[in-house]
Amino acid sequence: MTVHAGISGSSGRMGRMLVQMISERDDIAVRSASEHPSSDAIGRDAGEVAGTGTLGVTVVDSAEALFSSCDVVIDFSSPAATVANARVAAATGKGLVAGTTGLDASARAVIAEASRTAPIVSAGNMSLGVNLLLGITRKVAAALDEEFDIEVVETHHRHKVDAPSGTALMLAEAAAKGRGVILDEVADRGRDGITGARRRGAIGMAAMRGGDVVGEHQVMFLAPGERIEIGHRASDRVIFVRGAITAARWLHKRPAGLYGMEDVLGLTGD
Amino acid sequence: MTVHAGISGSSGRMGRMLVQMISERDDIAVRSASEHPSSDAIGRDAGEVAGTGTLGVTVVDSAEALFSSCDVVIDFSSPAATVANARVAAATGKGLVAGTTGLDASARAVIAEASRTAPIVSAGNMSLGVNLLLGITRKVAAALDEEFDIEVVETHHRHKVDAPSGTALMLAEAAAKGRGVILDEVADRGRDGITGARRRGAIGMAAMRGGDVVGEHQVMFLAPGERIEIGHRASDRVIFVRGAITAARWLHKRPAGLYGMEDVLGLTGD
Amino acid sequence: MTVHAGISGSSGRMGRMLVQMISERDDIAVRSASEHPSSDAIGRDAGEVAGTGTLGVTVVDSAEALFSSCDVVIDFSSPAATVANARVAAATGKGLVAGTTGLDASARAVIAEASRTAPIVSAGNMSLGVNLLLGITRKVAAALDEEFDIEVVETHHRHKVDAPSGTALMLAEAAAKGRGVILDEVADRGRDGITGARRRGAIGMAAMRGGDVVGEHQVMFLAPGERIEIGHRASDRVIFVRGAITAARWLHKRPAGLYGMEDVLGLTGD
Amino acid sequence: MTVHAGISGSSGRMGRMLVQMISERDDIAVRSASEHPSSDAIGRDAGEVAGTGTLGVTVVDSAEALFSSCDVVIDFSSPAATVANARVAAATGKGLVAGTTGLDASARAVIAEASRTAPIVSAGNMSLGVNLLLGITRKVAAALDEEFDIEVVETHHRHKVDAPSGTALMLAEAAAKGRGVILDEVADRGRDGITGARRRGAIGMAAMRGGDVVGEHQVMFLAPGERIEIGHRASDRVIFVRGAITAARWLHKRPAGLYGMEDVLGLTGD
Repeated sequence: MTVHAGISGSSGRMGRMLVQMISERDDIAVRSASEHPSSDAIGRDAGEVAGTGTLGVTVVDSAEALFSSCDVVIDFSSPAATVANARVAAATGKGLVAGTTGLDASARAVIAEASRTAPIVSAGNMSLGVNLLLGITRKVAAALDEEFDIEVVETHHRHKVDAPSGTALMLAEAAAKGRGVILDEVADRGRDGITGARRRGAIGMAAMRGGDVVGEHQVMFLAPGERIEIGHRASDRVIFVRGAITAARWLHKRPAGLYGMEDVLGLTGD
Repeated sequence: MTVHAGISGSSGRMGRMLVQMISERDDIAVRSASEHPSSDAIGRDAGEVAGTGTLGVTVVDSAEALFSSCDVVIDFSSPAATVANARVAAATGKGLVAGTTGLDASARAVIAEASRTAPIVSAGNMSLGVNLLLGITRKVAAALDEEFDIEVVETHHRHKVDAPSGTALMLAEAAAKGRGVILDEVADRGRDGITGARRRGAIGMAAMRGGDVVGEHQVMFLAPGERIEIGHRASDRVIFVRGAITAARWLHKRPAGLYGMEDVLGLTGD
Repeated sequence: MTVHAGISGSSGRMGRMLVQMISERDDIAVRSASEHPSSDAIGRDAGEVAGTGTLGVTVVDSAEALFSSCDVVIDFSSPAATVANARVAAATGKGLVAGTTGLDASARAVIAEASRTAPIVSAGNMSLGVNLLLGITRKVAAALDEEFDIEVVETHHRHKVDAPSGTALMLAEAAAKGRGVILDEVADRGRDGITGARRRGAIGMAAMRGGDVVGEHQVMFLAPGERIEIGHRASDRVIFVRGAITAARWLHKRPAGLYGMEDVLGLTGD
Repeated sequence: MTVHAGISGSSGRMGRMLVQMISERDDIAVRSASEHPSSDAIGRDAGEVAGTGTLGVTVVDSAEALFSSCDVVIDFSSPAATVANARVAAATGKGLVAGTTGLDASARAVIAEASRTAPIVSAGNMSLGVNLLLGITRKVAAALDEEFDIEVVETHHRHKVDAPSGTALMLAEAAAKGRGVILDEVADRGRDGITGARRRGAIGMAAMRGGDVVGEHQVMFLAPGERIEIGHRASDRVIFVRGAITAARWLHKRPAGLYGMEDVLGLTGD
């Protein structure tokens, strides 16, 4: 059965990638598209804007028009548009996949309220791989005791200004949660000099920088005689688009509620 | 609370390692030990045989005596001894962790029958890491569709005569099961020459050989723009001992039943 | 001192990348550019065609005009243009960096002849990383005896139709050459089934396929107790452009001769 | 041709490993062995002490006796014995491979003086792999410019009290030397927090700790579009023995002089 998708911000970089990737699939189709009222794309065909040929879908300028001819809206546009979309989702009970970054507390509150009458997936990072890594890390940390030392290491491009990366911190949090400890109490970051022996139960973190690496993360669980290594390498933003499409497929016909990518991936529960 | 353990085959390589590793822990203690009636160790102190100092535990020569003063027996000895241990476990309702390799169908039947009245963990490979890898592989394969290509690669020492390794095949089976396909229909082993493009849904397998590598396995899930890598490196047989102790701790006070390492690790369910 | 470069095929994909990357450097500058006489770019500014702003370099349509205002020509265009460029290089004694692929025996003969009076770097793969890996592999193989087992493993995208990759074969050749053996006599490709123990002196090869991996290669030297791993990961064709610019810088003021990337990288000699 | 070796400290852990490993080879044989005069091994057969069967070599208690029936002495014993051995080497012109650690300035001065009349290899780390990694790192750093970012990462067991490891610092020194910079001016160790973008030319260092990892080192050279990774994994002290035997073979019939492992491996020169 084909899911009818609406694309919010359809002429932006992520929006065009969504139109392109959906056009290659049979189980989901673009049925509506919207842009900011000031966009040149308003009134044009969303497929032509995305370079995939005529789709027969005219780009509209309102959330109401966007939702009127689809089952679920995928949104990587702007916090303001996402808030508007959440309100129409709430009113219509239709689905929303919100991958927009930079949402403030008030925007998140609107989404939470809307999820009382509409099924909504909201996530700061829509990558299937990163979200799987988070879920796996929590489970492995829960299954093993402190005889396994946990280390999180990441590599990013030379322009990154902070260390460890946000995703590395999320992984360390997932490990701490799985083990039932507080990350701040066990984190061992940026080792250098006379550190003394490793503290039992510590979660170590290290960062490498160089080249144009999009993002690589690895979590290691090291015990005498064996080691588990779980990692993720990202090389293209297309992975956020893939995750959003997977979420839209999963969300179809779900009951109202606020979901995360761990729900989409079936990683909840113990 | 301290688990009272009995060690079957306590003067063998694995048995001595069990005595040593348990002696370093507070949550489990050796309370009995057995060996084959022909062993020189009979009548000696199990701790002295293992080189850990006097334990006050005399090595006995029967399953009945072994079980009489412990809660759970850990067994890496021989199929014959394991069968005898299973029968006493059944009669007493006490726990058994069977890590013995080379069990034939009739031995396995005895164990299964015994598990109707006793809690038993039986596994061909007791390593926590390998069993976690198996569980994770199944879950990740279930969470992702065929847009992610699955590859299993392993490295072993120069003396190994078969490829891929048994564990690599178990990992590929776990991936196939997670995805709901039959491994034999999708396996792509030993690529060489003009192979054509990768078949969608294939599970690739590759083997490297060299040096004295004890065993390394990696499962990769590759999609455009991202890659998940989950791996395990073993360097010492102590990992089987650690897994058996973890199983004995977990088994204590469980209801009768036949359990696997995936139960011990909390990896069952979806 | 700034090298004055001429770009052959300046409006093609590699040509534009050359113009862009050179425009960001101080030690080399674009002073001339050429295209096929039928190209729309003829008569336009090479910088504008490449999207880097006006350079004051008009695209010309002949090798003679291209060479007239530069010291060294970089060429990723076509075999026919490369042959023409080699002839003008020979006549003028100016340098040529030929990264063109698909050269036949007669084209290679023209280049070899031209190198009697002009300095020429010719290579099928201009990547600094791959060429370094080749040089290192040969040296390490020469330094170690057969107590170190050699394995070459590579990963490429799902569309690749042959295994192992051409670069993997070049690496295995480099290892064989370093060790003083014939690759065909020691290669052990695509292990599967009952292989028997590893033959002493064998060079193993394995291939993985999946996702959109541009190209990854690793050479391992495994002995009891230790392992050396040298690898390369490519993610973008820009690496061929970088190699060509490095070659052009190196070639400036060299004596006539036919050079390879191993000369540019200082990897010749023992 | 078989090299006649003498083993200093033949009943210690390294000495016995030397006797064992040499007994498996055809190109070198143990012809003499020595121990401290207080050792129980004096007067016994060196092969029996090492568990390899009778060799017909009686353990002696002086450097003079040790050198009298061999061509080259291999020494992992103690600084005092190494000094005595160096003096006899100087007097006889025979070879010495000194892998002893903890040599002070005066011991090193004796060795340097002795090398005026005897061929001596002295190295703090005799591993072939680590020394190859050092040589390769210097060469690759020399071949590449600052468009390649250099990172050194290492992993060691949980008991290690300092970071980065001594070998990691040697690798960073080798990279700095290859590039012609001063390590202290470019080192970027233990990144954590708001670091700002990577400084051009920096050499980054990171450390991971856990389990019983003997020692793993990796040097990465990262540029846009490609990455070179060279690494070493150690799992057993046997690698120092192998390196010493290789050095003894290489040293045979060399002219007097003080050599390092880079000479043995043919990594000197540019």
